[in-house]
Amino acid sequence: MQARLIDRRDLDFLLYDVLDCEALTSRERFREHSRDTFDAVIDAAHTLAVEQFAPHAKAVDEHEPRFVDGRVEIIPEVKAALDAFRDSGFLAAGFDASLGGMQLPITITQACFGLFTAANVGTAGYPFLTIANAHLIAACGTDAQRATWLPHLLSGRFFGTMCLSEPHAGSGLADIRTRAEPQPDGSYRLFGQKMWISAGDHELAENIVHLVLAKIPGGPPGTRGISLFLVPKWRLTPDGAIGERNDVALVGLNHKMGYRGTTNCVLGFGERDGAWGELVGAPHQGLAVMFHMMNEARIGVGLGATMLGYSGYLHALAYARDRAQGRPIGDRDPTRPPVKIVEHPDVRRMLLAQKAYVEGALALCLFAARLVDDLGTADTDKARNDARLLLEVLTPIVKAWPSQWCLAANDLAIQVHGGYGYTREYPVERLYRDNRLNPIHEGTNGIQALDLLGRKVGMEDGAAMQKLAMLIDLTAREARASDSAELRAHGQALTDHLANVMEVVRNLLCATDRGHAEIALANAHVFLELAGHVVVGWLWLKQALICVKQVGTEPGPQRDFHMGKLQACAWFFRWEMPKCTHWHRLLDTLDTTCLDMQDAWF
Amino acid sequence: MQARLIDRRDLDFLLYDVLDCEALTSRERFREHSRDTFDAVIDAAHTLAVEQFAPHAKAVDEHEPRFVDGRVEIIPEVKAALDAFRDSGFLAAGFDASLGGMQLPITITQACFGLFTAANVGTAGYPFLTIANAHLIAACGTDAQRATWLPHLLSGRFFGTMCLSEPHAGSGLADIRTRAEPQPDGSYRLFGQKMWISAGDHELAENIVHLVLAKIPGGPPGTRGISLFLVPKWRLTPDGAIGERNDVALVGLNHKMGYRGTTNCVLGFGERDGAWGELVGAPHQGLAVMFHMMNEARIGVGLGATMLGYSGYLHALAYARDRAQGRPIGDRDPTRPPVKIVEHPDVRRMLLAQKAYVEGALALCLFAARLVDDLGTADTDKARNDARLLLEVLTPIVKAWPSQWCLAANDLAIQVHGGYGYTREYPVERLYRDNRLNPIHEGTNGIQALDLLGRKVGMEDGAAMQKLAMLIDLTAREARASDSAELRAHGQALTDHLANVMEVVRNLLCATDRGHAEIALANAHVFLELAGHVVVGWLWLKQALICVKQVGTEPGPQRDFHMGKLQACAWFFRWEMPKCTHWHRLLDTLDTTCLDMQDAWF
Repeated sequence: MQARLIDRRDLDFLLYDVLDCEALTSRERFREHSRDTFDAVIDAAHTLAVEQFAPHAKAVDEHEPRFVDGRVEIIPEVKAALDAFRDSGFLAAGFDASLGGMQLPITITQACFGLFTAANVGTAGYPFLTIANAHLIAACGTDAQRATWLPHLLSGRFFGTMCLSEPHAGSGLADIRTRAEPQPDGSYRLFGQKMWISAGDHELAENIVHLVLAKIPGGPPGTRGISLFLVPKWRLTPDGAIGERNDVALVGLNHKMGYRGTTNCVLGFGERDGAWGELVGAPHQGLAVMFHMMNEARIGVGLGATMLGYSGYLHALAYARDRAQGRPIGDRDPTRPPVKIVEHPDVRRMLLAQKAYVEGALALCLFAARLVDDLGTADTDKARNDARLLLEVLTPIVKAWPSQWCLAANDLAIQVHGGYGYTREYPVERLYRDNRLNPIHEGTNGIQALDLLGRKVGMEDGAAMQKLAMLIDLTAREARASDSAELRAHGQALTDHLANVMEVVRNLLCATDRGHAEIALANAHVFLELAGHVVVGWLWLKQALICVKQVGTEPGPQRDFHMGKLQACAWFFRWEMPKCTHWHRLLDTLDTTCLDMQDAWF
Repeated sequence: MQARLIDRRDLDFLLYDVLDCEALTSRERFREHSRDTFDAVIDAAHTLAVEQFAPHAKAVDEHEPRFVDGRVEIIPEVKAALDAFRDSGFLAAGFDASLGGMQLPITITQACFGLFTAANVGTAGYPFLTIANAHLIAACGTDAQRATWLPHLLSGRFFGTMCLSEPHAGSGLADIRTRAEPQPDGSYRLFGQKMWISAGDHELAENIVHLVLAKIPGGPPGTRGISLFLVPKWRLTPDGAIGERNDVALVGLNHKMGYRGTTNCVLGFGERDGAWGELVGAPHQGLAVMFHMMNEARIGVGLGATMLGYSGYLHALAYARDRAQGRPIGDRDPTRPPVKIVEHPDVRRMLLAQKAYVEGALALCLFAARLVDDLGTADTDKARNDARLLLEVLTPIVKAWPSQWCLAANDLAIQVHGGYGYTREYPVERLYRDNRLNPIHEGTNGIQALDLLGRKVGMEDGAAMQKLAMLIDLTAREARASDSAELRAHGQALTDHLANVMEVVRNLLCATDRGHAEIALANAHVFLELAGHVVVGWLWLKQALICVKQVGTEPGPQRDFHMGKLQACAWFFRWEMPKCTHWHRLLDTLDTTCLDMQDAWF
């Protein structure tokens, strides 16, 4: 059975009813577009994902890329899918028309990209990195760099990567050792080893453009001495053709639990005379420049995690509607046939939890994508600045929340399938293995927690957090004035939890001011949990407020859709939001249990 | 680096300080034993597990059993390990001396068995099922059956299985279709297909003894018409030698996410003229008889889940002490070397959580094993009956709690490793995949929840639950009278949570009496969560009360051990127990969110 990649009613509801993407078409950049063109692109992405990506998702997991005679062998379906992806124009979909792009809003391109991830995350990894890479060069490269590299990246002739980690340094980038020696002609020669490089080597494109963090000797120590370099696998001749092989070698492939279709490489730079590279951005500003790509990558990771969870949910739902087993509690007559397992309350609990996690996460990721559009194209400076602030504070949540809770959804999808879900015959076990990567890469969730509490919450005198609180408060007020007693109660709960968050923020910032940064940050993880739930609870309430207006009395699919949304919101507020109380208490008391634990006591 | 299989100080503390296993040696059955013989057997198990089981754990995962020409091919290290296991006498360790056994307490044999699971769960699966099979035949077989089959099972010439599920019926055993036709000579011929049969076929032993649930035609419908049969792969000649092949065929192997070393089979019974079998126990009493094996299997599953989590924890701890990355919050000078990651509070959080989960789960499983010993050998009828009641009510918790929370520990073990933990080069990803089976097999955790709330809590007028509550209350009182303010607080929390549990029990039983069984049971899962945490919280407090007496002021490993236990207990009470408040509220309000959700709304 071919499960759906997404509930299209949900996607449409989020894009148009919640996020009002149609309004984007009044902006200059998107004036060629309309809801019709948006829908047509999403339809095309869906068809391509179903026809070219989904069919080999199992095969590329079972036959992962192999390192043979210094080259990477990948099953041919991957290249066929990526060629079709390129030919359909999805690589350039969000870029300027002048670059051959469709100039679509990021909200729409992200929605499309999520479909490819849902269909086959391994194959989708290559264009994911290529697009992010091209965005960085477009934003931070010189004119020459843009002219040289962008056309190749956007046409899919070249693919891209990001090279940050080294075998000894992942979360701790301050300690990277790759060095970039300046050359008389202004280029650099790089020497060092990079680890965990997704799409780091393959034969799927003519060339690979690596964006590499390295240190220029003599620079400041730590992260302030990191610069960013563009290092191609193959150097180009002066006329732009593929020239000689650059000194970048595939040292080995990492063999992962999941996400197997995307090669993950150890790369050696400068094993001979140094890998040729160009500086991108200013010297020693590499981390800031790279964060252009990283922030986008983090939204992408959140969306990817969401879509893996979403796909698992839809598989579990289809299975639960098909599988007959057991009888209702009240009527156990064994001579009557067993019922579909979707009838059992505990199965409905597992499905409802999945729905609440994945639809909540999708709302979060698309909201963030909409902010990226506002950052670029909103009408006023203030609106663009608001979007920037909100993105800053939301990015760690967008990365971490879906990667935690949509993985939990994948776990529940397996449980709904029982023994079958544990076998490799059903996709839910693969989705679970794939999704386990997401809490780790592009900054572990622990790093996201430190980013949120250590940087974002206090930035610009707390402006970002206050902006977010205002938005949440607006929705909570609207709910508290609702005709629905249920939504009034949720609104009050959201108001209370938000007040707790803001109180914690004040206390923790205070503690930091008093030199107790270590105590304040020791429970950064708990703060991330709390803030994440409040944000997703807010987005659920936002959805419910629209549904309660739209829901009619006429039975049918429309009413069912709205009732389902309202029930999922109710579940989130009754089953999930109370966890905030516990997290708040831990933060409120500046709990030091983990801080006090000693190594020797383990 | 070879990680430890267990913290031996912890095991000794649990066996001797918490469970007073030395006292068992005063009982007639164990009078040949002493703490020295217990320790010697545990030492021998440890050596065997390290030398014969651990080395091929990765290999048997990578090269899982294959179905070749109708036979199962398994890498040779598995048979070598199992031959060594048999030669060391571990198959018969808990059985009567008259059967060639060591007549060891179950608490000790389970502790030993846990070491094999920690080392290599795939290979340990075969003796696990064989021992459970032999226990059932010893307890419920006829003299002739015991004489015929037990010596072969305990000598390891034959291995055993349990065959319950069918492709269409797993949790819903009422609907099994395998039928057993009575023959004039008193034997039966079986026809049907069985699913998920662990160790269902292989060439590791001369024969395989299947214990098979089937229906005798004409019996009552549903579970009351299920009987149990012993069906060997090879029939025996009258003098006990291997005779002709029985009509049991390997239909196929299931390919699982983890636990790959243990074959998992679809078996066809009676594809020709019927599979010969003998009835075990009375006709139509098969489920009750099988539960002899199931209850033991469920404790075994809980212990297995615990040990997979335990092994992951020790790997993560070793990694965190070895891996240098980042700097303390208060001292970020990049010219100083990075610190070991165990120094970071968030890593300590993840390690402390793992410690609390796995050591708490081990206490729970060994407590249950100790009850099995009491059930068999306690001095008085009352003590044996108390043990029976406690086992009834604890078994679903023992199965479910470790399989949920020690899987959570495995998840954290990966996270501590960062990207490395996601690769197949480090064992933590395998342990995570292995452990994901445990919430599913031997009755899904959803089934355990229904068993606990639907059967065990109300059984014999609530006697089992009351017995458990008395024990918990005893510990809570002792803590409330402690010199330690911390333990007094935990004692009060435990008292409060226990009162909530008992209140919920009364309300739910009341609701059931009023015909609202569906509402009462709709949140059975939540009740299992609540009861599980209260039980494990109790066992943590029990440990802490001993530690607070034993902890000295002299620095050193002993004090470190006790301080670690006290800190883990503190973590459990501060970070985990407050979840009970939320679960209690859901139960207290008879939440119907999941029950009210409609299929069409998804």
